[in-house]
Amino acid sequence: MAIRPLGDRVLLKVLDAQEKSRGGIYLPDTAQEKPQQAKVIEAGEGKLLDDGKRQKPLIKKGDVVLFGKYSGTEVTDSAGETYLIAKEEDILAVITK
Amino acid sequence: MAIRPLGDRVLLKVLDAQEKSRGGIYLPDTAQEKPQQAKVIEAGEGKLLDDGKRQKPLIKKGDVVLFGKYSGTEVTDSAGETYLIAKEEDILAVITK
Amino acid sequence: MAIRPLGDRVLLKVLDAQEKSRGGIYLPDTAQEKPQQAKVIEAGEGKLLDDGKRQKPLIKKGDVVLFGKYSGTEVTDSAGETYLIAKEEDILAVITK
Amino acid sequence: MAIRPLGDRVLLKVLDAQEKSRGGIYLPDTAQEKPQQAKVIEAGEGKLLDDGKRQKPLIKKGDVVLFGKYSGTEVTDSAGETYLIAKEEDILAVITK
Amino acid sequence: MAIRPLGDRVLLKVLDAQEKSRGGIYLPDTAQEKPQQAKVIEAGEGKLLDDGKRQKPLIKKGDVVLFGKYSGTEVTDSAGETYLIAKEEDILAVITK
Amino acid sequence: MAIRPLGDRVLLKVLDAQEKSRGGIYLPDTAQEKPQQAKVIEAGEGKLLDDGKRQKPLIKKGDVVLFGKYSGTEVTDSAGETYLIAKEEDILAVITK
Amino acid sequence: MAIRPLGDRVLLKVLDAQEKSRGGIYLPDTAQEKPQQAKVIEAGEGKLLDDGKRQKPLIKKGDVVLFGKYSGTEVTDSAGETYLIAKEEDILAVITK
Repeated sequence: MAIRPLGDRVLLKVLDAQEKSRGGIYLPDTAQEKPQQAKVIEAGEGKLLDDGKRQKPLIKKGDVVLFGKYSGTEVTDSAGETYLIAKEEDILAVITK
Repeated sequence: MAIRPLGDRVLLKVLDAQEKSRGGIYLPDTAQEKPQQAKVIEAGEGKLLDDGKRQKPLIKKGDVVLFGKYSGTEVTDSAGETYLIAKEEDILAVITK
Repeated sequence: MAIRPLGDRVLLKVLDAQEKSRGGIYLPDTAQEKPQQAKVIEAGEGKLLDDGKRQKPLIKKGDVVLFGKYSGTEVTDSAGETYLIAKEEDILAVITK
Repeated sequence: MAIRPLGDRVLLKVLDAQEKSRGGIYLPDTAQEKPQQAKVIEAGEGKLLDDGKRQKPLIKKGDVVLFGKYSGTEVTDSAGETYLIAKEEDILAVITK
Repeated sequence: MAIRPLGDRVLLKVLDAQEKSRGGIYLPDTAQEKPQQAKVIEAGEGKLLDDGKRQKPLIKKGDVVLFGKYSGTEVTDSAGETYLIAKEEDILAVITK
Repeated sequence: MAIRPLGDRVLLKVLDAQEKSRGGIYLPDTAQEKPQQAKVIEAGEGKLLDDGKRQKPLIKKGDVVLFGKYSGTEVTDSAGETYLIAKEEDILAVITK
Repeated sequence: MAIRPLGDRVLLKVLDAQEKSRGGIYLPDTAQEKPQQAKVIEAGEGKLLDDGKRQKPLIKKGDVVLFGKYSGTEVTDSAGETYLIAKEEDILAVITK
C-alpha cells in the first residue's frame, strides 16, 4: 500500500532534527519562516503543459530537499507515519553531497 | 440513472472511517485540515487544453484517492446516497496497494 | 421568438421539486449550497479558444444538468416563464438514465 | 457623424418598456439584477486573439440582445440620444423571432 | 520636440466643450462617469503579441475618440499644453463623420 | 564598474528641473501624480517571450523618457550618484526633438 | 555538500558592507526599501517555458547582483553560513566592472 502523488505533486517525509544534522544543513527552531528539509518519497507525473504533455519533475525519489515550511498538506498512513503532499514548485532546492 | 461529471470534474464517494481502515490510510477526526479519502465513481472528459483537445484524467473509475477536505460540491441522489463533485486538480494522490 | 445564448453560455430551465423527483436525484431544500437541476433549453456556439475556433459544448439541448445554485442570470419571457442564462463551465454534471 | 466602437466593444441602444413588449421578453422593473434588452447599433472589429487576428463578433448590427444591467459606459450624442458602449462578452444572449 | 508614446500607448489632446460641440457629441458636465472626447496626437508601435510582433493600433493620428474619464496620465509640455498618455485599450470608440 | 539591468528592466537617471527645461517638457512640482523625465543609461536584454526569445526594448541608451513617478527602485553607486531601475513597461513615452 | 536551487531559483550570498564597498556600489543602511547586493553561488535550471523547455538564466555563478531587499527565503548551512534562495525575476541588475 502506498500514496502516489498526482501531477505536479510530490510526497515528502519531513526530516527531524537528528536526520537534518546528518544531511548537514542546520535549520534553527527559532526561525519560523525558514524552509524545512524533507526526503522525496515519490514524485507525480509532472506539471501539465499547454500542449497536454507533462513536464518531468526536477526532483526524484530519494532526493533531500528544502521547501517552504507552510507548504503542502499533511497525511498520516495506517502505521502512524506522517507525510506531506506538496507541489513541486514549492520545493526551493535539492541538498547535494 | 447516473450522474456524469463534466470536463475536468470527477464524481466521488467519500469513504467512511471503516472503509478507510480497510484502505489502510488512517485520517484522524481531529485533523480538520487533513485530506479525505474517496472512491472515484466516474471521471469527466478531462481538462480543456488551449488547442481544444481534452487532457485524459490521471485518475480512473474505481481509484481510491485523497482530496482536500473542503473541495467539491455535495449532491444526494434519489436513494439518499451522497456524492461529491470535485475538480480533478483538487485530488492530491491515489492510494495504491 | 426565442432566447439564443451566446458563446460559452447556456439557456436553462430550472426544474421544480416534482420534475426533479422524476429525474431521480433528490436535492433537499435545506441544503442551500447544494447544486440545482435544470433542463438545457439551448446551448451557445461554445467557448472561444486561443486560435479563434470555438469549443463545442459538452452538453446539448434536452440534457438534464446539475449546476451551482448561485450561478447564472435570471430572465423572464413574455409568457411569464423564467429561465437562467449560465456559463457552460458552471455546469457540474449531466444526469443520465 | 457616428460612434464607431473599437475592438471587442459594441454600441447599444437600450430598449424602453414599450419597445421591449414588442420584442416579447418581459423584464420587470422590480428585478434590479435582471439583464436589459438593447438593439446593436454597431459592433467593433472583434476581440484581439493571441496571433494578432481579430475574432468576428457573434452579434451584428440590428440584433436585439440581453446584457447585464450594470455593464458598459453611457454616452449621449448631440441630438440628446443616449447610447451604451459595452464589451461583447457582457452580452448574454440574442433575442430571435 | 515631441512626445512619442510607447507600445500600446497613445498621446491624446482632450477636447474642451467648444471643440466637442463641433465634433457633435454632447457630454454633459454633470455626468462624472461619462467618457471624454480627445484627438489622437500620436499612437505607439502597438501592443506586444505573444510571438514578439506588435499589433497595429485600431486608431491613428487625427482620430477623435471617446475614452474613460479617469484613464491615462497627464503631462504638460514646455509651451504649457497638457496632454494625456493612455493605453489603446482604454479608448472606447472613434467619432466618425 | 557599472550596473547592468536584467531582462525587461532599464537603468534610468532622473533629470532634475534644469535638465528638464533643456529637454523642453515642463513638469510642475505641484502635480504629484505626474510622470517624471529620465535619461536611459542602460537597457536590459528585453522581455522574455513565451518561446524563450527576448523582445528587443523599444527604448535605447541615451533616450529621454517619461515614466510613472512611483515606478522603479532607487540605487546609489559608490560615487553617490542615484539611479532608478524600472521595468520597460512603466515607461510611457520617449521625448524626441 | 551543497544547496542546488531548483528551476528559476538562485542561491545567493548577501554581501556585507565591507564587501559592498569593494564592489563599488554604496547602499546606505537608512534606505530600507533599497536593493541589496549579493554574490550568485548557484543558479537553477532556469524558468519553465510553455513548451517544456527551460530558459537559461541571465545570471551565472560568481555574478554580483542587486535584488529587492525583501525577496527570497533565508537558509543556514551546518557551518552556520546563511544564504538566500531567490527567484531569478527578483534580481534587478548585475554589477559589472
